[in-house]
Amino acid sequence: MNNYKLTIQYDGKNYRGWQKLSDSDKTIQSKLEKVLSTLVDEEVNVIGSGRTDAGVHARKQIANFHTEKDLKWKDVLKHCYTYLPEDIVVKSCDKVDEKFHARYNAKKKIYTYRICNSAFGDAFERKYSYLVDKKLNIDKMLAASKYFIGIHDFKSFTSMKSKKKSTVREIYDISINCIGDMVEITYIGEGFLHNMIRILTGTLIEVGLGKMKIDEIPTIMDGLERSDAGFTAPAHGLFLVDVIY
Amino acid sequence: MNNYKLTIQYDGKNYRGWQKLSDSDKTIQSKLEKVLSTLVDEEVNVIGSGRTDAGVHARKQIANFHTEKDLKWKDVLKHCYTYLPEDIVVKSCDKVDEKFHARYNAKKKIYTYRICNSAFGDAFERKYSYLVDKKLNIDKMLAASKYFIGIHDFKSFTSMKSKKKSTVREIYDISINCIGDMVEITYIGEGFLHNMIRILTGTLIEVGLGKMKIDEIPTIMDGLERSDAGFTAPAHGLFLVDVIY
Repeated sequence: MNNYKLTIQYDGKNYRGWQKLSDSDKTIQSKLEKVLSTLVDEEVNVIGSGRTDAGVHARKQIANFHTEKDLKWKDVLKHCYTYLPEDIVVKSCDKVDEKFHARYNAKKKIYTYRICNSAFGDAFERKYSYLVDKKLNIDKMLAASKYFIGIHDFKSFTSMKSKKKSTVREIYDISINCIGDMVEITYIGEGFLHNMIRILTGTLIEVGLGKMKIDEIPTIMDGLERSDAGFTAPAHGLFLVDVIY
Repeated sequence: MNNYKLTIQYDGKNYRGWQKLSDSDKTIQSKLEKVLSTLVDEEVNVIGSGRTDAGVHARKQIANFHTEKDLKWKDVLKHCYTYLPEDIVVKSCDKVDEKFHARYNAKKKIYTYRICNSAFGDAFERKYSYLVDKKLNIDKMLAASKYFIGIHDFKSFTSMKSKKKSTVREIYDISINCIGDMVEITYIGEGFLHNMIRILTGTLIEVGLGKMKIDEIPTIMDGLERSDAGFTAPAHGLFLVDVIY
């Protein structure tokens, strides 16, 4: 069997997330599987590096699929360009080892959450960032973010309900980059729980607005209670920016 | 009378252009006049530096309006932020000399046309650039653009039908900037005819694709025939980026 690795870019606004659903074809995975199936003339199962929520964007999502057919990268890209909706773009296609698995082999994921910190809005950034119209204290947000780095139980920072699965994860780094009104928080980790980055971001925003104190963070983390953490920042500010193998 | 100068940013996608129309309130000017009228409690006439077509964006459009009321810049911005649709943003408001006129006093206008020159598209740029999926020869486009610089009769490059008005204009400079797949053509001029930048851009694209030769440009210009020039590049790639006074 041939195994192909895809690099995919998508504007998540019109989709119910990456993962295919039984009751809707408005997901990235199902769009890809449908289009690739018509290319190879057999059923295709596309394995993503991980799910992204409804409305979340990806500058670089990685996936793979197996097929009996021998494919040229250019034909795959051309076929996808022709038949996929224009808000999903396959940027590259490489033949990889048969055992390569986009999810199991992913070592690191990089996400960026974009905040437009402008008192009066921005006409162009509104769909790709979350508007916070009160001034954020970035130094405080940066200080608070340090508590998240390392291996921790992030039970307070996920909407995951399962009691059986581990909520321990490692975050390697969090950085905050400001360009004009735009505040970009970048998270690098081995993997993230459901809604984790959006809740971490909501918590950092509450610190930045003075609604929460920096030294409350360790207490919230130790309490393992979702209700103690900040709000879930909206999906449209979040981008999956890279997956490292 | 007080006179206020506004700096306005808008995403033109949902509008039928700057200029108010008798049969629609989906124009930037009418949205502004309506919202400013409720602020000052009198009818407001907003004078723009010039019209922009349906679908054209503005990073920086300049306008002014007169009122009997004494206004604080912050109150104007706050009121506009609250009542304008989120794709129109008033970025600044300054009290200026009573005689300042956004259109008559404008010395230079700067427009940028954005082309996404990518064989397989881009998920995020599609609403703010025109996709050209065949490779453009930028050197040829740059050479062709030199013919447009200076004082010329641009009759071949406008959809303006009037035979009485002059079609002579001066272009001070045209530059082409490439960042990754993005090709940005920036035009600086005293003012531009209806659809002129979009037709100049369409002509440069035809040169870049090898459909038109560089040395055809002077002949097209001298012929004063619209049908000899290139196509009208679509509105969604065009941005008014600044007005100089």
